[in-house]
Amino acid sequence: MYIGIDLGGTNIAIGIVDDNAKIIIKGSTPTFNERNYQEIVKDMADLSMELINKAGLKVEDIKAIGVGSPGSIDAKNGIVVYANNLLFNNVPLREELNKYFDIPVAVENDANAAALGEYKATGVESECFVAITLGTGVGSGIVIDGKIFRGFNGAGGELGHTTLVADGVLCTCGRKGCWEAYAAVTALIRQTKVAIEKHPESLMNEIVKKNGGEVSGRTAFDAAKQGDKVAQTVVDQYVKYVADGVTNVINTFQPETLVIGGGISREGEYLVNPVRQYCEKYSYTKGTLPETKIQAATLLNDAGIVGAAFAAKELIG
Amino acid sequence: MYIGIDLGGTNIAIGIVDDNAKIIIKGSTPTFNERNYQEIVKDMADLSMELINKAGLKVEDIKAIGVGSPGSIDAKNGIVVYANNLLFNNVPLREELNKYFDIPVAVENDANAAALGEYKATGVESECFVAITLGTGVGSGIVIDGKIFRGFNGAGGELGHTTLVADGVLCTCGRKGCWEAYAAVTALIRQTKVAIEKHPESLMNEIVKKNGGEVSGRTAFDAAKQGDKVAQTVVDQYVKYVADGVTNVINTFQPETLVIGGGISREGEYLVNPVRQYCEKYSYTKGTLPETKIQAATLLNDAGIVGAAFAAKELIG
Repeated sequence: MYIGIDLGGTNIAIGIVDDNAKIIIKGSTPTFNERNYQEIVKDMADLSMELINKAGLKVEDIKAIGVGSPGSIDAKNGIVVYANNLLFNNVPLREELNKYFDIPVAVENDANAAALGEYKATGVESECFVAITLGTGVGSGIVIDGKIFRGFNGAGGELGHTTLVADGVLCTCGRKGCWEAYAAVTALIRQTKVAIEKHPESLMNEIVKKNGGEVSGRTAFDAAKQGDKVAQTVVDQYVKYVADGVTNVINTFQPETLVIGGGISREGEYLVNPVRQYCEKYSYTKGTLPETKIQAATLLNDAGIVGAAFAAKELIG
Repeated sequence: MYIGIDLGGTNIAIGIVDDNAKIIIKGSTPTFNERNYQEIVKDMADLSMELINKAGLKVEDIKAIGVGSPGSIDAKNGIVVYANNLLFNNVPLREELNKYFDIPVAVENDANAAALGEYKATGVESECFVAITLGTGVGSGIVIDGKIFRGFNGAGGELGHTTLVADGVLCTCGRKGCWEAYAAVTALIRQTKVAIEKHPESLMNEIVKKNGGEVSGRTAFDAAKQGDKVAQTVVDQYVKYVADGVTNVINTFQPETLVIGGGISREGEYLVNPVRQYCEKYSYTKGTLPETKIQAATLLNDAGIVGAAFAAKELIG
């Protein structure tokens, strides 16, 4: 058994995970991210202990703990180098957790952990696997020969920060035209707002009004499904942005499987199928070789827990 | 000792390479690429034998042979699946070479082999290494943990075919706006021609006239070095295209070292230094972590031979 901790800016989700990637029990507690790390880690430890007890287990049953944290991670030393939305700066997460549990602790970037979780969920031992998460940003994690790929300095796999449109929309990273600036849900919301402003007659406007004025990542998809043409244009353009970046990922990695996660992946085949068609048409190999399987993520919110647990398993070999 | 064969559309270059990546002896023979593969492989075998004799070696001194070939390669089975400029279709290169030499034969994509050669030339055991070749296209090879990265179907690492400019210039691969369509030497020549047409007063025009009317990858660089402002604009824009793609590669792989090869890399620091500056400014990590070392390729034309030899060495473990 392993403990997997998905540390987010809002919530800490924790689960006890077995060797088959099954979550035995899980729970969550608010992060209250303005606190210092010692208090946050204490809550992690308390909830972990609570879950161990609830599951009728003993501390000795837990072989290792894994934590998926946002930000830049020094996985070797178990340190969160920097995490913007946690006010973390060189936080020795492993050392601090070891004050409560004297077992190995893996610290991993959250997108990497989620990718490892989704990889385990496929049940296939791929040579190469990529998970893309469409959310506030475009996150990504790459698994090569069963191990998370991090590059030499631990910061590899920032696929959201590869150019899609040279000199395009300014990205949060300071560059212009990153994939993230076009394919994140934040970007879809921006694209939806622009379309509503131009076409106030669109069904999207009604949906937004019913929704208390809030434009979400679902607005355009919902209206398009009801036949709204303006919404369909927004969806088509957004899908093209997603697919263009996915094609880049395929030409780069030729992963056996590529999963698309994040809230928007709940659209399922409505999102994934056109992406698949685009990639089949434009990928470098175009069907001359076995193609990457593109599918919606299956674990979604649980991917972080399962992946963190497997990062722990990987750590102890 | 290993034999490294760099099979090109025009020439076949062959070298005998020792365990330290040193070429003991080398030679070349025309490919005459309209011939069938049996004749081409016979020439490979004859030249290899000639080099073995010239070097005062015996066939028994050669542990394995590696061939770097253009096109899609089935490395597992030693087959060239398809190579456009060789008229090769499912050619059993290993099997055919084994008719002459009864030793292990590795068959590798030429860009991958060249990358492995440049990797060995750095003398550093990087976790991740990337070589970019700016030529007719933009070739690339990725070495992870000392092994060539190929993706699950062998076609990975086509970094030249990732979008730089959505809906931009049509690429040979059928997509629009690939990095290759902007950063290949072919693209630089196109960009130079456009500038000369607009500005016939540019020094570039004189250089071209002296050169028998031929625009080359050097035209803009040569004129810029002599103070021609229009040429400088061409060079600056080209360097930006190269650097933008290199930044994408860094954000994706965070390689310890990235080398830029191809004829144009003979411009050395004049090309590499501005690329380095751009990447320092725009890469995702921006100096918060150790940075990728960007340098000009060192082996250049010999990279294919050395890399093919080391692919052979890798094959026999």
